[in-house]
Amino acid sequence: MIKVVAKHFIEESRINDFLENAAELVESSLKEDGCISYGLYQDVKDSEVVAMIEEWEDRDSLEDHMASEHFKSIVPGLNEFYE
Amino acid sequence: MIKVVAKHFIEESRINDFLENAAELVESSLKEDGCISYGLYQDVKDSEVVAMIEEWEDRDSLEDHMASEHFKSIVPGLNEFYE
Repeated sequence: MIKVVAKHFIEESRINDFLENAAELVESSLKEDGCISYGLYQDVKDSEVVAMIEEWEDRDSLEDHMASEHFKSIVPGLNEFYE
Repeated sequence: MIKVVAKHFIEESRINDFLENAAELVESSLKEDGCISYGLYQDVKDSEVVAMIEEWEDRDSLEDHMASEHFKSIVPGLNEFYE
């Protein structure tokens, strides 16, 4: 099993846009084969820090995920919300 | 460097109590030698799921942390808030 923790530092004014896009990524990713969990978390003390915590069955599932249409269409756009 | 991700599933009515206790743990832990980061995160879709994401310089720092007074006095009590 592979775990991924990805932290994102978001511009305060863009948090809601980021969360909306990220929620779409989470929803599609959870439907993928080999996805055990995929959650979106916000720092309790600092809402500009968001973490994705993901669990994948194996490296192949993670690679398929990174080659998926939803990954390729959503992830590159997320960086426009970064601080 | 060692990373720790600890997920907690909390009873809805006890979330605020849990967060208050956990915040105290975070604050003390951040002052420890070898603590690179220590954050408390809440699932955006489900506020009953809380994750701690921690980074420690090495195994010794993590072991010292688990032997610290604040760890021993706070962590065993956190499970009373679990679902």
